[in-house]
Amino acid sequence: MFREKIKVFDCTIRDGGLMNNHRFDQRFVREVYKALSEAGVDYMEFGYKNSKNLFSQKEFGEWKFCDDEDIKKVIRGIESKTKISVMVDVGRVDIEDVKPKKDSPVDMIRVASYVKDIDKAIYLVNHFADKGYETTVNIMAISRALDNELNEALHQLEKESKALVVYIVDSFGALYQETTEFLIKKAKSILKTKEVGMHAHNNQQLAFCNTIEAIIHDANFVDATVYGLGRAAGNCPLELLIGFLKNPKFDIRPILDLISNEFIPLREKMEWGYIIPYAITGMLDEHPKTAMELRSGKDKENYREFYEKIKGMDMD
Amino acid sequence: MFREKIKVFDCTIRDGGLMNNHRFDQRFVREVYKALSEAGVDYMEFGYKNSKNLFSQKEFGEWKFCDDEDIKKVIRGIESKTKISVMVDVGRVDIEDVKPKKDSPVDMIRVASYVKDIDKAIYLVNHFADKGYETTVNIMAISRALDNELNEALHQLEKESKALVVYIVDSFGALYQETTEFLIKKAKSILKTKEVGMHAHNNQQLAFCNTIEAIIHDANFVDATVYGLGRAAGNCPLELLIGFLKNPKFDIRPILDLISNEFIPLREKMEWGYIIPYAITGMLDEHPKTAMELRSGKDKENYREFYEKIKGMDMD
Repeated sequence: MFREKIKVFDCTIRDGGLMNNHRFDQRFVREVYKALSEAGVDYMEFGYKNSKNLFSQKEFGEWKFCDDEDIKKVIRGIESKTKISVMVDVGRVDIEDVKPKKDSPVDMIRVASYVKDIDKAIYLVNHFADKGYETTVNIMAISRALDNELNEALHQLEKESKALVVYIVDSFGALYQETTEFLIKKAKSILKTKEVGMHAHNNQQLAFCNTIEAIIHDANFVDATVYGLGRAAGNCPLELLIGFLKNPKFDIRPILDLISNEFIPLREKMEWGYIIPYAITGMLDEHPKTAMELRSGKDKENYREFYEKIKGMDMD
Repeated sequence: MFREKIKVFDCTIRDGGLMNNHRFDQRFVREVYKALSEAGVDYMEFGYKNSKNLFSQKEFGEWKFCDDEDIKKVIRGIESKTKISVMVDVGRVDIEDVKPKKDSPVDMIRVASYVKDIDKAIYLVNHFADKGYETTVNIMAISRALDNELNEALHQLEKESKALVVYIVDSFGALYQETTEFLIKKAKSILKTKEVGMHAHNNQQLAFCNTIEAIIHDANFVDATVYGLGRAAGNCPLELLIGFLKNPKFDIRPILDLISNEFIPLREKMEWGYIIPYAITGMLDEHPKTAMELRSGKDKENYREFYEKIKGMDMD
């Protein structure tokens, strides 16, 4: 698949940060930035821009806040064409913390929102666009969105927002390729002036599959993470996506080195990827948090009981 | 997805046997058979029916040979509607070893063949059909098959063979969903009187994806293995397939117990699944044997060198 407009967006440190309270040290993040730059990846997302009034700097690492100074330290001296992104959650950002683009190393701000918060997301995204940033709105938990509400949100985004990209986010890893096709086609048909993006989770080993499916139906922004690192089952593996895309600007080899040297050792200390409780929440279209709790306790391999509990919740 | 005709075919012990020289003990195989029977899985494949003149019984476990007596020991006393299958490789079977169906616990014999050996496969499959067995022909290494030769083989199978099912086998885990769609549609269009099957490998985390794709395009026989156990990157995980299919006859819970109790401990001792060297052979459409060799040596995490070596082979 070669289509010049396709942008590969890495969110390893941001989505992976949900598994360690954003405590990646500067050296590690610098290694990731270096490898992504050499590999020709278009964007790298460092973390969230959260209010320090809402979250404690003792409890969370620096990538929960993404101060410009911390980003500058990481990227200093590395030659790169990779653009830098941070994510903002509706209701968790102090907009005064965000300087005008010309004074910041950040290129893009992505606003994560549920369908119901789309008015707030549009306010934020327009504010950041006015400050000079590239912007996106990422519609989370798409597998739970009601069709009429999603339609209305997409129409609003098209008419009222300055976002360059609107993302379909399969937060629960619940989508099969037929529904991905349906959602991407719907988004493309409404968002005439914007790009469509895909952010997939790997609960059912379908993150790469759904990302390919989105590309087939003309999504041009695709998220991936190194070795699939991300919340719970993780995301579309960047190495597979680069292997699939035929644009000669990409080079898989720095990513392979990065996995050998950094991610294989990391996987010994941190758990993510295909694990049965995450598969269960994916197939039952539930948030992975219950499965993450299970994995931190002593019953972590008791899959049947977990399945029956989650299934029972459906019937309440 | 609910279609009554879909048959779920488990080949855990057969494909997994390629990773341990078919040395699963009777107790383990019995646990698998019991769980599959409770789960409502349609078929279970035990291993290969190989000639003892070609392979040593010292070097290989009993599931390299699948004597009827060994199968009988495993299934004794277990209530089950799950049919029993064994696989035969062209050129490796003594047909005299295969008794008439009425004297055997085996229900189905599957003949694995490359496109070039299709005449031999047809001879074998007709011989076994005449002995009373259900039969299939499994066309291996489909990602390397030339289109004209594949067309001819499919026409021959339709006209000359008594096989009930013809399988598309993605031996290298190289297929993306678009090619799966193309191949399944082609097979369906030629094989008017037969069912089409899909056997996928998971090198690029697309085994489940390609299996769904095959089902969408009317393949009715789908292979899977418990927790994806199988050669190299393994196969389509049975638990995901059962979660996807809506036929109420299937019950995922016995499979979840089986994974908790048997497959989590087994995975500590045996390696299979998504591992970078297998991803590399998949994306470069190569046999996984070079990657399996790498994983048994001391350079097993040197991915870049392995990639460059395999890539270089392409250019020779």
